[in-house]
Amino acid sequence: LEGFKIDPSIALTSDLGEAMDGAQAVVVVVPSTAVRATCEAIVNLKPARPPDFWVLCSKGIEQGTLMPLHEVTIDVLGEAWRDRIGVLSGPSHAEEVARELPTTVTAAATRPEVAEAIQRLFHRPRFRVYTHDDVLGVELGAGLKNVIAIAAGVADGLGFGDNTRAALITRGLAEIVRLGVAMGARQETFMGLAGVGDLVVTATSRHSRNHCFGENLARGMTCKEALDEVGMVVEGYATAKSAHDLAKKHGVEMPIAEAVYSMIYDGLPVGEAMDRLLSREAGAELA
Amino acid sequence: LEGFKIDPSIALTSDLGEAMDGAQAVVVVVPSTAVRATCEAIVNLKPARPPDFWVLCSKGIEQGTLMPLHEVTIDVLGEAWRDRIGVLSGPSHAEEVARELPTTVTAAATRPEVAEAIQRLFHRPRFRVYTHDDVLGVELGAGLKNVIAIAAGVADGLGFGDNTRAALITRGLAEIVRLGVAMGARQETFMGLAGVGDLVVTATSRHSRNHCFGENLARGMTCKEALDEVGMVVEGYATAKSAHDLAKKHGVEMPIAEAVYSMIYDGLPVGEAMDRLLSREAGAELA
Repeated sequence: LEGFKIDPSIALTSDLGEAMDGAQAVVVVVPSTAVRATCEAIVNLKPARPPDFWVLCSKGIEQGTLMPLHEVTIDVLGEAWRDRIGVLSGPSHAEEVARELPTTVTAAATRPEVAEAIQRLFHRPRFRVYTHDDVLGVELGAGLKNVIAIAAGVADGLGFGDNTRAALITRGLAEIVRLGVAMGARQETFMGLAGVGDLVVTATSRHSRNHCFGENLARGMTCKEALDEVGMVVEGYATAKSAHDLAKKHGVEMPIAEAVYSMIYDGLPVGEAMDRLLSREAGAELA
Repeated sequence: LEGFKIDPSIALTSDLGEAMDGAQAVVVVVPSTAVRATCEAIVNLKPARPPDFWVLCSKGIEQGTLMPLHEVTIDVLGEAWRDRIGVLSGPSHAEEVARELPTTVTAAATRPEVAEAIQRLFHRPRFRVYTHDDVLGVELGAGLKNVIAIAAGVADGLGFGDNTRAALITRGLAEIVRLGVAMGARQETFMGLAGVGDLVVTATSRHSRNHCFGENLARGMTCKEALDEVGMVVEGYATAKSAHDLAKKHGVEMPIAEAVYSMIYDGLPVGEAMDRLLSREAGAELA
């Protein structure tokens, strides 16, 4: 982050062995595609004293295996670690955190002691950490929101307004809930910081890469051009494929995620994708 | 709405008797403080053929009685009308509806036939009406969101960022849910268009009067100056008082709504109100 200095009390190293030497906690903040390899590299170090717990800040769904990243981590570390892996998630643009603007996030772990240990590690007056026990729900909310943010970007790019964006956020949230609950997460989790909170920030911010990617598609760019123009990883691009596969696997209807998938992977024109969404029958809201 | 023509097939009148002559449905779209008087005026007309159903587009909580407006309407019309009163609500800036930008709303009534009749009356491809049966939840979501939007306006006015606004929206939603459930509404309702959807539009839009009012307070205006500068009805101003009274009555914690109440009615400085919110203990997210 340009313009910010890292506190001198923090030691930096690019040597994994040095970083792990006596580490009480491991905090994983790498692109989602690098989580498995990073965990494997740490395990291969066979640290003399294993850390007390792991915190995942990366989240998403692994391509192919369709595993959420905390399951990938358990897959590498072993089932015995399930209770000592937590996720930290919520609406938290890094630059605003660095500027000490008030921010709230969720620390989720199956055991409350671990969630509270993560809370103690990170909580500050202007970086407020709430504990949670639904690891799967918190991770799915954080991962799937990126797909809905692409749809919101497309709508904004087509010149639609606040009403349309709010509709996509709300109906998109309903899709995330349907899939999450089918996979074993709890509905209430998605009303929280890692659900609604993160979705709102990502889908309304023109700084969001996923939103930008959607806007680029609406401007007529091909998928490759739209990605190149963003120039950084667009997590929702891969997640749209995983969401499509998971929806099929669990027999869940996700029309907005499906429209995003079709635009990206089947070359469906953006206008047609929107028309499909608008020509659906409107039934009961909670159906 | 400037620049838009009303379809010539629509007959206009300012004569209530003429409007009610043979009317199949009554659609009430007046400021929330005028709902009781308007309903009374219609009832006093004693129309020869009573309408099949009523649709409330005004929503909020009546000062003093603390009745939601659909209960006010029932109070005037009589209990026998409970099943024939519906509410129409959702993220729908009027100007965007007039421009035919895709919009979604909820039609709620205790009887599905009534909700579906309202749906048939209003549904268009670009004005999508979903049915619902939780009249109280839909009305409370629409009313209480305005108080949270004031808090979001204050945060934006103080120069806080997207993270803070998302935190207020999410934690504010949790407060609305707590009060709504205590009053008999259903939790899921607040995840829908009349909850999350409407809250997102109102709390993120700089065109929202409630948001503007909050921004004005943050700039150091007195409450009266802040209201005068907006120049139109700020629904959240009165609702903050009702929310305060309802929270007390039902024994529900609503720290954000309470902070807004204190800024407006107790003259609490905005900076201090924000500090109070930030110095609260952060516990479990779902507590």
